[in-house]
Amino acid sequence: MLNKKIIINLLGFLLMVEGVFMLVPAIVSIIYKENDLVPFLKSSAITISIGFVFWILTRDAKRAVGKREGFIIVTIVWVIYSVFGSLPYILSGAIPSFTNAFFETISGFTTTGASIINDVEALPHGILFWRSMTHLIGGMGILVLTVAVLPFLGVGGMQLFNAEASGVAPDKLHPKVRETAQRLWGIYILLISIETIMLIFGGMNLFDALCHSFGTLASGGFSTKNASIAAFSPYIQYVVIFFMILAGTNFNLHYYLIKGKFKKIFKNQEYKYFISIILISTVVIAFFLVKTHAPIEKSFRDALFQVTSIVTCTGFVTADYTGWAKFLWFFIFVLMFVGGSVGSTSGGIKVLRHLLLFKNSVVEFKRMLHPSAVIPVRCNGKVISNEIIFKVHAFFFMYLVIFIISSLLLTFFGMDFVSSMGAVVTTMGGIGQGLGSVGPVSNFALVPTAGKWLLSFMMLIGRLELFTVIILFYPAFWEK
Amino acid sequence: MLNKKIIINLLGFLLMVEGVFMLVPAIVSIIYKENDLVPFLKSSAITISIGFVFWILTRDAKRAVGKREGFIIVTIVWVIYSVFGSLPYILSGAIPSFTNAFFETISGFTTTGASIINDVEALPHGILFWRSMTHLIGGMGILVLTVAVLPFLGVGGMQLFNAEASGVAPDKLHPKVRETAQRLWGIYILLISIETIMLIFGGMNLFDALCHSFGTLASGGFSTKNASIAAFSPYIQYVVIFFMILAGTNFNLHYYLIKGKFKKIFKNQEYKYFISIILISTVVIAFFLVKTHAPIEKSFRDALFQVTSIVTCTGFVTADYTGWAKFLWFFIFVLMFVGGSVGSTSGGIKVLRHLLLFKNSVVEFKRMLHPSAVIPVRCNGKVISNEIIFKVHAFFFMYLVIFIISSLLLTFFGMDFVSSMGAVVTTMGGIGQGLGSVGPVSNFALVPTAGKWLLSFMMLIGRLELFTVIILFYPAFWEK
Repeated sequence: MLNKKIIINLLGFLLMVEGVFMLVPAIVSIIYKENDLVPFLKSSAITISIGFVFWILTRDAKRAVGKREGFIIVTIVWVIYSVFGSLPYILSGAIPSFTNAFFETISGFTTTGASIINDVEALPHGILFWRSMTHLIGGMGILVLTVAVLPFLGVGGMQLFNAEASGVAPDKLHPKVRETAQRLWGIYILLISIETIMLIFGGMNLFDALCHSFGTLASGGFSTKNASIAAFSPYIQYVVIFFMILAGTNFNLHYYLIKGKFKKIFKNQEYKYFISIILISTVVIAFFLVKTHAPIEKSFRDALFQVTSIVTCTGFVTADYTGWAKFLWFFIFVLMFVGGSVGSTSGGIKVLRHLLLFKNSVVEFKRMLHPSAVIPVRCNGKVISNEIIFKVHAFFFMYLVIFIISSLLLTFFGMDFVSSMGAVVTTMGGIGQGLGSVGPVSNFALVPTAGKWLLSFMMLIGRLELFTVIILFYPAFWEK
Repeated sequence: MLNKKIIINLLGFLLMVEGVFMLVPAIVSIIYKENDLVPFLKSSAITISIGFVFWILTRDAKRAVGKREGFIIVTIVWVIYSVFGSLPYILSGAIPSFTNAFFETISGFTTTGASIINDVEALPHGILFWRSMTHLIGGMGILVLTVAVLPFLGVGGMQLFNAEASGVAPDKLHPKVRETAQRLWGIYILLISIETIMLIFGGMNLFDALCHSFGTLASGGFSTKNASIAAFSPYIQYVVIFFMILAGTNFNLHYYLIKGKFKKIFKNQEYKYFISIILISTVVIAFFLVKTHAPIEKSFRDALFQVTSIVTCTGFVTADYTGWAKFLWFFIFVLMFVGGSVGSTSGGIKVLRHLLLFKNSVVEFKRMLHPSAVIPVRCNGKVISNEIIFKVHAFFFMYLVIFIISSLLLTFFGMDFVSSMGAVVTTMGGIGQGLGSVGPVSNFALVPTAGKWLLSFMMLIGRLELFTVIILFYPAFWEK
């Protein structure tokens, strides 16, 4: 029997938490004396009240949370947070349409950073702060998700190296898992703080520094400027690059760094490939940009920034790559399928999965030459089980099937070939900037309404590593 | 030790065979009294002489053919056949450039049907006959390859149902394998004969009927008309559709049909999906074409023809789908990744592989809900081993990686995004018509030279099911 009560109870509790979060931008409104204070108070009151009703009516729920409840909660919480999180936009009039407000909010919580707002700078500070806070909250959600919830559900990449995360009941976290989650949150907040200070040091005000640090460490991409990071100095651009890389790195490696376990960092194959992909792509792109585009330093900076922004699935912008040679923006398009590291806040397919797929292909050749030998795939010196290779392959296959069907639907809704593919890959990967009509200097405002809902779903499904959402559409999931 | 002598010996023998094949179009030249007789005699003489020298110098070779020799022979024979097969084009002046002549020839032998000829109708009959004969010969090669050689090498889909094909030495075929190969060739020739008669019945002359039957049953796509099959009546178009479907069907099913084993046909899951994909895609496309394009019968016929032509990887044309709504030609683009059936002359990924990938993804959900249970993938009522699922997944992954890298290279050579992807998918899949500048009413004449060589390689690698060619680039293959 599905324990519906505990699902509603937990959702009610989490809604109350969201309502409390909404009081933070209310403080920003007070400081800046702008007219979005009342909308925040109203939104908070509505969210807390409804959460409270959910929670109080189900307070006798049995505390047992099984796998099925886990899948349902994880998906619904992202949706319901986005529904209530869009209240401030709607009530303040910043984004009057529900479709647009929902798109913007789920884009925030999934740390995608795709926007439908044409003039960001016209919005009040409170609204902009809430917008960036959706990244902050989303990033925290992702960290606890990857470290604790998804491994328990048997989804996602972290399980590869987190055999300890064998079970978790949300109100009684396995001590090790709770410890890990707290550790990751600590690192997350620490890195946000350091980036904020470094940005202020470069001349940013506290407000912008906080918003952009939230956007960086969550690998989100919402900016407070229409020109995104191009509005700031080269120093600030390099700072953002540095922290985007940290955000796209497995957070366990940051922990090892703090603990001085450097060996563990250098032995990590995913990290090596993650950094190599960024560096090699940068060099290739910079090489061509120097010829046609800009002087060496600027070419290198633009290439490094855009490559990092896309590989880490952040989505900040300093250059319009759709204006580069078609070879280069095709290259950028391909990079959108990479994704950052497992156990980071980045999205997409992720480097570890690519690495395992490549390794398995190479091993397949060995198997062809020696058909009777059992040759396993190894990573970081460990044998990877067939079950995991299967899961990674199935993930990759589904990722592409979903990518193709959704792109096809978007062209059916009236978008062109290139923009459709760009829009789907950037939302599925949680990046934020696409190609063509949804490129880095455009936004998603003109996407047809049906397309906006489809892309909202892509953000959700991509963020939750496909399986978590798709399994809800699998009939056997609901039987008995 | 690699048995180099037997490789050269067999290649010499096969070259002599090719030289003899070249005498057939010479007869056509005599009949039509055209000036391409001498070029054919010269080409034949050169090919037979060189083949003879290879063969006579290595006649003392040990008859032992291992796996490694097999891989090398299979790849080289396709290349060397294309090199010598381009002689008639060059010597007759029909295609003066070696790059173009090689492209046209390998496109014929791999039964792709991508062409660089602008005005087919200006060519002499002998040349056109040789062009269609490269399809005929290529199709025969593919049948023996899939049934006998690739299973022995551990590549390709046929091994799924052909456990008996465990070993083969070309001059002493395993009786069962030899019998199977002869049976398939018999069916191939029979179907070509029936189509020829049916086309003549529809008013075609013998020459056109033979050329188009070769092109159909080999799922090739070279036509003797600039307008391809659009130059002929609806009756002929339906005949070609019917035989394209037969060419894309597993040839074992034709054998079952002849033997009256209807149960085996209806139980075959790949066949069901193959037919369903064609029918459903046709209905979807026809539905939209009726609104904007043409009356019902013509819309249905155009949709059915193009869908069949692409799914079976033939490449004949009756309608320019790039002029259809962008949604529809994106749909066509996606269909280019389907491929026909295993054990047919079609190319591409093939329906059976897609089926296994889908089944494995569904099973993956079951595994997530019941992590301790061992749940295998089943097809046609049989359990499919993990090894095969692995192989299929690795194939799919490599197919996409090669597709992406090659498309990227083509944009680097100066082609646009859409045309690049269209050119690569159509050559890898052995289809023949792409998108954009290489769409159904254009051809490959304007592709840059580097691009032509890249696409020639794509035809080869796609035809030989990737592994066969790629393994030659794997260093361990050449060790000891």
